[in-house]
Amino acid sequence: MTSVKLARDFGLVCGDLVPGELNAITDVPGVRVGHLTQWGGDLRTGFTAVLPHDGDLFRQKVPAAVAVFNGFGKSAGLMQVEELGTIETPILLTNTLSVGAGFSALVKRAIAANPEIGRKTGTVNPVVCECNDGALSDIQAMTLGETEAFAALDSARTGRVEQGALGAGSGMSAFGFKGGIGTSSRRLSLDGRRFHLGVLVLANFGRSGDLVLPDGRRPRPPKTGTSEAEKGSVIIVLATDLPVETRQLKRIARRTGAGLARLGAYWGNGSGDLAIAFSTARRIAHDESRAVVPVEVLNENRIEAAFRAAAEATQEAVLNALCAAPATTGRDGAFRSSLADWLRDNPPL
Amino acid sequence: MTSVKLARDFGLVCGDLVPGELNAITDVPGVRVGHLTQWGGDLRTGFTAVLPHDGDLFRQKVPAAVAVFNGFGKSAGLMQVEELGTIETPILLTNTLSVGAGFSALVKRAIAANPEIGRKTGTVNPVVCECNDGALSDIQAMTLGETEAFAALDSARTGRVEQGALGAGSGMSAFGFKGGIGTSSRRLSLDGRRFHLGVLVLANFGRSGDLVLPDGRRPRPPKTGTSEAEKGSVIIVLATDLPVETRQLKRIARRTGAGLARLGAYWGNGSGDLAIAFSTARRIAHDESRAVVPVEVLNENRIEAAFRAAAEATQEAVLNALCAAPATTGRDGAFRSSLADWLRDNPPL
Amino acid sequence: MTSVKLARDFGLVCGDLVPGELNAITDVPGVRVGHLTQWGGDLRTGFTAVLPHDGDLFRQKVPAAVAVFNGFGKSAGLMQVEELGTIETPILLTNTLSVGAGFSALVKRAIAANPEIGRKTGTVNPVVCECNDGALSDIQAMTLGETEAFAALDSARTGRVEQGALGAGSGMSAFGFKGGIGTSSRRLSLDGRRFHLGVLVLANFGRSGDLVLPDGRRPRPPKTGTSEAEKGSVIIVLATDLPVETRQLKRIARRTGAGLARLGAYWGNGSGDLAIAFSTARRIAHDESRAVVPVEVLNENRIEAAFRAAAEATQEAVLNALCAAPATTGRDGAFRSSLADWLRDNPPL
Amino acid sequence: MTSVKLARDFGLVCGDLVPGELNAITDVPGVRVGHLTQWGGDLRTGFTAVLPHDGDLFRQKVPAAVAVFNGFGKSAGLMQVEELGTIETPILLTNTLSVGAGFSALVKRAIAANPEIGRKTGTVNPVVCECNDGALSDIQAMTLGETEAFAALDSARTGRVEQGALGAGSGMSAFGFKGGIGTSSRRLSLDGRRFHLGVLVLANFGRSGDLVLPDGRRPRPPKTGTSEAEKGSVIIVLATDLPVETRQLKRIARRTGAGLARLGAYWGNGSGDLAIAFSTARRIAHDESRAVVPVEVLNENRIEAAFRAAAEATQEAVLNALCAAPATTGRDGAFRSSLADWLRDNPPL
Repeated sequence: MTSVKLARDFGLVCGDLVPGELNAITDVPGVRVGHLTQWGGDLRTGFTAVLPHDGDLFRQKVPAAVAVFNGFGKSAGLMQVEELGTIETPILLTNTLSVGAGFSALVKRAIAANPEIGRKTGTVNPVVCECNDGALSDIQAMTLGETEAFAALDSARTGRVEQGALGAGSGMSAFGFKGGIGTSSRRLSLDGRRFHLGVLVLANFGRSGDLVLPDGRRPRPPKTGTSEAEKGSVIIVLATDLPVETRQLKRIARRTGAGLARLGAYWGNGSGDLAIAFSTARRIAHDESRAVVPVEVLNENRIEAAFRAAAEATQEAVLNALCAAPATTGRDGAFRSSLADWLRDNPPL
Repeated sequence: MTSVKLARDFGLVCGDLVPGELNAITDVPGVRVGHLTQWGGDLRTGFTAVLPHDGDLFRQKVPAAVAVFNGFGKSAGLMQVEELGTIETPILLTNTLSVGAGFSALVKRAIAANPEIGRKTGTVNPVVCECNDGALSDIQAMTLGETEAFAALDSARTGRVEQGALGAGSGMSAFGFKGGIGTSSRRLSLDGRRFHLGVLVLANFGRSGDLVLPDGRRPRPPKTGTSEAEKGSVIIVLATDLPVETRQLKRIARRTGAGLARLGAYWGNGSGDLAIAFSTARRIAHDESRAVVPVEVLNENRIEAAFRAAAEATQEAVLNALCAAPATTGRDGAFRSSLADWLRDNPPL
Repeated sequence: MTSVKLARDFGLVCGDLVPGELNAITDVPGVRVGHLTQWGGDLRTGFTAVLPHDGDLFRQKVPAAVAVFNGFGKSAGLMQVEELGTIETPILLTNTLSVGAGFSALVKRAIAANPEIGRKTGTVNPVVCECNDGALSDIQAMTLGETEAFAALDSARTGRVEQGALGAGSGMSAFGFKGGIGTSSRRLSLDGRRFHLGVLVLANFGRSGDLVLPDGRRPRPPKTGTSEAEKGSVIIVLATDLPVETRQLKRIARRTGAGLARLGAYWGNGSGDLAIAFSTARRIAHDESRAVVPVEVLNENRIEAAFRAAAEATQEAVLNALCAAPATTGRDGAFRSSLADWLRDNPPL
Repeated sequence: MTSVKLARDFGLVCGDLVPGELNAITDVPGVRVGHLTQWGGDLRTGFTAVLPHDGDLFRQKVPAAVAVFNGFGKSAGLMQVEELGTIETPILLTNTLSVGAGFSALVKRAIAANPEIGRKTGTVNPVVCECNDGALSDIQAMTLGETEAFAALDSARTGRVEQGALGAGSGMSAFGFKGGIGTSSRRLSLDGRRFHLGVLVLANFGRSGDLVLPDGRRPRPPKTGTSEAEKGSVIIVLATDLPVETRQLKRIARRTGAGLARLGAYWGNGSGDLAIAFSTARRIAHDESRAVVPVEVLNENRIEAAFRAAAEATQEAVLNALCAAPATTGRDGAFRSSLADWLRDNPPL
């Protein structure tokens, strides 16, 4: 993948803060990403998994929050995240009609590791988010099952993240171009301590012609022959090692919506746009025995940098997805060109 | 089922309004209910289906709203109901770990009727709500599949509703007694027009000893041998033929929480308590061609009766579930006595 | 006030938990309550002030959260409490049309103590909650000004809380009886540490005939001659010294709504029913210099007792308000009888 | 004011839709705007009033909704708008510490027109929104009273809207430049019927250096000598004559946040950013006698244009405020330069 050019390689810079070493969600220590891709025939689909740490998430939950910009979507697990402020499974991204399969896969994995689930302790809350890749892939085929979900989970790694048209992003489109998986991060420094905030997006949103680049240019893809308006969605997974309470995490998550809007989007009617955020700064033991637990919490007066980071990293992660994804022909000959090609053909003045 | 005694048969009256003819959610014209029960060995589980009308719900959606009292739950589809104010599939109730199966079943049914879903039009938003029946049933077995969901949907009928330990309610418990499915309704009269508001509950909530009857008595079940606190949930499905906008429907749905509280509950930490409400007064065409549609809407100054009806019918539906469900022995010999037996043994003074 | 009989003096017990020593919001260490009453002619109105501690609240904020059951109300300051999770002024309760006066009074007090407000630092967020006492008092006269608000603030004391028809409660009605100010508390024990949760209500809600006592009886006041339906509101101030994050505090605050519902209320259409909660376990410095602050936070698995306490104390605080308030004649001869009189005339069987 | 140049005069175009004839909120038929300005000495402050129609708003309410992007603010009346979906007074904009005065003024005006308020009918819910103009004006002086509010209300007119540094906008700043009042509108066409959506902003937000123009340029004001970060807020008033239910209106209102983000803002921690929206398509009679009312409602599939209009008009209204406001020296010599001057000095390439 060394030849893949991302937004910064094309001179597109989002905001003022400095990215982390990998410019990826995996700059947050411990975070892992994995993909399973189905590519062939009428299929361009898959699973992408994001894991906050390498332990048992049901036993060692992490603080989490949700921000919904437009709730036209079928994601699972968000209500409990909102109420309890934790996630207790990996986060799976996939196509809309495979949420059920992802749900069952996460349940089975959790039970395998914790046989007392649903017997001696409560049940488990799987988090599965989705976009509709039906324009490029035969979504009705429902070819993704538990085996495919397990493969995505098992392939999760720290370090560099593959971006573009793979995993859950295989069949996605954005602003009329080929969309998919993108990531970006920002460094934060507080009282001499180094923190990171990273974002991974599943980009499948934005009407053709609406995209605005950071330099004000508006790339338009060549006519694709589809007359219908784009109906998309975007899922944003935000990770940070900042110590935050869930109300703060929700405030940070909301700022990813500003990153989307800077790209020309406005959380369209048919677009399920939402962010799920977690912090790795604290683990919440399922069997915590202490009634009161000592924790660290961010001074609210210092939250501004995290807001900026969330907006910038989201904007850049989407551009990275569009740059990394090559021109693609999918189901029934549907075609999406690559933003990278447009950028090569249209150098800035 | 003619010998089943319900709350009113035991002299328990909730509030002042008059029930509909069936005292059931099916007093709302067109509403249908179906059950599929798995009962045997370590299984006490199933599906219950509620259908707003007998047409194609994807083509003819109905206004809907959600009220979440405690979001400790894994129900699917609620985010989109909240955003768009409609439901476009039947509502399925089931056990927690079968949400994925219910999701896939509703998707497949919708595609079978509308092959353009995910191809020429958007995807579909399945609504599946759940409670944890693991105390009486082997929930890990995950024995409910799409076939079972289809059976519940296909058995849906107008008219009298079977209540107690069947369908999704087969393995549920409430206030230490056997719980399950219950229903109740209230008549409403506005400007000489007759309307109905009906409620169907999946009752699996409430700590043993907390139940308060309308006459102030507090029935306690005999010791069950389980030392752990009850961890439940309750799903409330509310139907009405009142013409309401979704904000009004949400306000009405919220009042079901008062019905729960009158029973002694307080939406406990581990209890996923929520209501999903729909109105049959309007059908929203998927392919509506008019930009502006004439509708009727309730005068907000006249909403009070619907609030009272929602609280009363919810309180009574839960009591009906507890009265209708017989004493039950489930997985590993777990036992739940029947509130009906307690009421027979403890006549009011 | 030594002869005032409260709910427990009449044998009315709400729930199972044990009250604090004073059975008042002031059982939470440091919490102070003050009243200013206007009583005479057509006026039955006033201010009630609740102060989380005796320091400068703008400099030393406390964690806070809001739960709105029915937003038919004009309270000020709640939006910022929801966003930032803190309160930075005392809480003032008053009649609906005096919110502006209370707002200005709190602003001036904050500026007097902190001259840099609005100049070298941000502005201040006054919290003023209200009910409509127009049935018994000439609310249009708008006789409450900043002087009266200051008097309520200056009279705030720890220790025993006067209840009934005084302060903001002077002209309030509930369930057709005379309403007003009531309070109650519960003790909580966690890992051998003693905590308290206390509630103070401004009770002005509930339709005549709807009240349900803990023993199931339904007291009806004598006919009052007013044909119109009661239109009320209830404000609940909840204090605790439990160390909680704001999401937890909001969850606890929501359970006060169950206390209202147990009384027969259902958060009626015209009733502005809301709770504002704060914790004294932590002070948040306006000029905090550390980026990350060590705090304690409650183990969510142990939150259940706080939920029960919130419901029970709210139910009891309302009954205390009704028991403490004597029969009152107000504006234009409007009359409200006392629940205490009804209870004396109707001893339990 | 004929010489005032607005965004389009400088070649700055926001989006693709066509403005209304006045490019102002008053393109929505019946909407009126008035200002009262205090300018002199250390004062740069005032009131701006927006009236949905020229009738008695308490008697003839209009549908309304709220969208809060960052709830760091002291605006009054929003909770009831959210619950009941109506506004029943004019909307007043002013400085933060004058919310109390505006509240009382609206109450008195409503009572003057409807003496039964608080006596024979309910109370009234005043809507007052605010930003902090303390950087340029002596906000502590609290010089705005009811008289000034009445003057703003009485000056309200249809037709052309004065923009820039007047009314509530007198002392506001945005992105380091002089801010204030701005407006813009968009035409919408549905089934051959003409509709309008208009926005009026009170712009007092955005950090110096963050502003992004539609062409990608980032204007930076000359150093102002103030070292502290900007702490602002922005209030967005959105009007439309589209027939919408309140859930739809709230969805439309939310898209104004995208307009803010396109300018480089991200709803900063200290910035109270919110929108209040109303529709003039329907009047809701306070004394409506019919239980069920016929109305028109927008087909949700056609809502997209309103979303785009809300984002575009908000972006342009802010730019208009910045273009119309001249360089201003305020309290203690604080200075804000004009974006218009920057644009004249920096013509596009």
